[in-house]
Amino acid sequence: MSKPLILITNDDGVMAPGIRHLVKFMLEIGDVVVVAPDKPQSGMGHAVTMTVPLRLEKITVNSGHDEYSCSGTPVDCVKLAVNKVLKRKPDLLVSGINHGSNASISVIYSGTMSAAIEGSMETIPSIGFSLLDYRFDADFMPSKKYVQRIAKNVLEHGLPKGICLNVNIPAVPEKDIKGVKVCRQARGNWNEDFDHRTDPMGKEYFWLTGEFMLHENSDETDVWALENKYISVVPIQFDFTAHNVIPELNTWSFDTK
Amino acid sequence: MSKPLILITNDDGVMAPGIRHLVKFMLEIGDVVVVAPDKPQSGMGHAVTMTVPLRLEKITVNSGHDEYSCSGTPVDCVKLAVNKVLKRKPDLLVSGINHGSNASISVIYSGTMSAAIEGSMETIPSIGFSLLDYRFDADFMPSKKYVQRIAKNVLEHGLPKGICLNVNIPAVPEKDIKGVKVCRQARGNWNEDFDHRTDPMGKEYFWLTGEFMLHENSDETDVWALENKYISVVPIQFDFTAHNVIPELNTWSFDTK
Repeated sequence: MSKPLILITNDDGVMAPGIRHLVKFMLEIGDVVVVAPDKPQSGMGHAVTMTVPLRLEKITVNSGHDEYSCSGTPVDCVKLAVNKVLKRKPDLLVSGINHGSNASISVIYSGTMSAAIEGSMETIPSIGFSLLDYRFDADFMPSKKYVQRIAKNVLEHGLPKGICLNVNIPAVPEKDIKGVKVCRQARGNWNEDFDHRTDPMGKEYFWLTGEFMLHENSDETDVWALENKYISVVPIQFDFTAHNVIPELNTWSFDTK
Repeated sequence: MSKPLILITNDDGVMAPGIRHLVKFMLEIGDVVVVAPDKPQSGMGHAVTMTVPLRLEKITVNSGHDEYSCSGTPVDCVKLAVNKVLKRKPDLLVSGINHGSNASISVIYSGTMSAAIEGSMETIPSIGFSLLDYRFDADFMPSKKYVQRIAKNVLEHGLPKGICLNVNIPAVPEKDIKGVKVCRQARGNWNEDFDHRTDPMGKEYFWLTGEFMLHENSDETDVWALENKYISVVPIQFDFTAHNVIPELNTWSFDTK
């Protein structure tokens, strides 16, 4: 039987340790093609590049598989990979491993997860992986068996149409990982602040900073799972409609007369 | 009674005709503060600026209210407005009027709608408005009464927690608008293509192009409403969890032994 074709991307850039580990993990499972941003694209959300042209460069790696660096966003990478790089639809798209959490509301800002969502829009079974450690020298090895196991599950079972997985991994030694927990996105938000500074020319500028605020304590959420040393798996969909609110809005009057 | 405080932003840039019209429409309803990008930010999705500092400039307008241009994304504008510009939480956030549709799956790529979603995350009743005409000289006047009516509805009724509205307006004369229809996001996707070119230095580059593909014909969707000359109103939420998929994932084995 032929090996599965696995497309890999991320948002930290093609040279980030997180994607380098993910490539190694996936080469043990299938044939790998990498199309990833040429520079960090964290916080890009579901951005696409429309006003400037995109560049795609084939880059040399030692492992014999094909890798490309792209000047655009993670979503651009997926679109270019599917339309211009790959000869057939991949069996799996994996994005990451992100340096830092994409649990709870962070999913909406995450380039890693937007690439996975774009994959699911292209009907490719897709997974975004994130490790709860922002550092360059974060230890990705404890996650190896779990990342491979989750990828194999998706290859074996597929995913329902329009669904991808948001997988977050606690930054603990492998022996301390309690297992995998399927959960939902915790209710929370980023309580942002701005560091207000003055540049050498005397003009003011702002750096975005912020603190995550959790709004609930349910054990059904990804934040609970991660705090309790489980790997969290949240199924993600891209219908933003709040279906339960439609009846209420239908009681409003929109008469302009 | 004091007038409501209305925060206005967009993704086409602070000088775009769409936001200029929205400012005029809102000045008839409340006190207005504008914080909008200093350049076009279409397709930015829910991007935030993290690797470069943000600039915020007070700009002079004739109408006597405060306006600021910001170097960041639409989401950055909302965060800066709430944290650094406004003295109190606004009673309403309106984003747009976008030049071009944000119906169906376009909501996920839209900077206009991401600003409204960010507003709802900040617990501000928020609305994104889009006109189905990409042109600079699009006619926004037929939408005036409806934009004002919808804004007044939200000021009067509020919106459930975590919900904002995605309002799209057909590009037809006012007399042809059939009314307002509350609906859901149509299932569809962008079937993208890339225009593959060679630059004057002989290097290849790509422009993103694409065609919208509608996957259903239900009269409950925003696309149906717009094709039938209704203004579409879709309630939007930011829980991406596919709750109905959780039981199925719980049948998978994640055993790594």
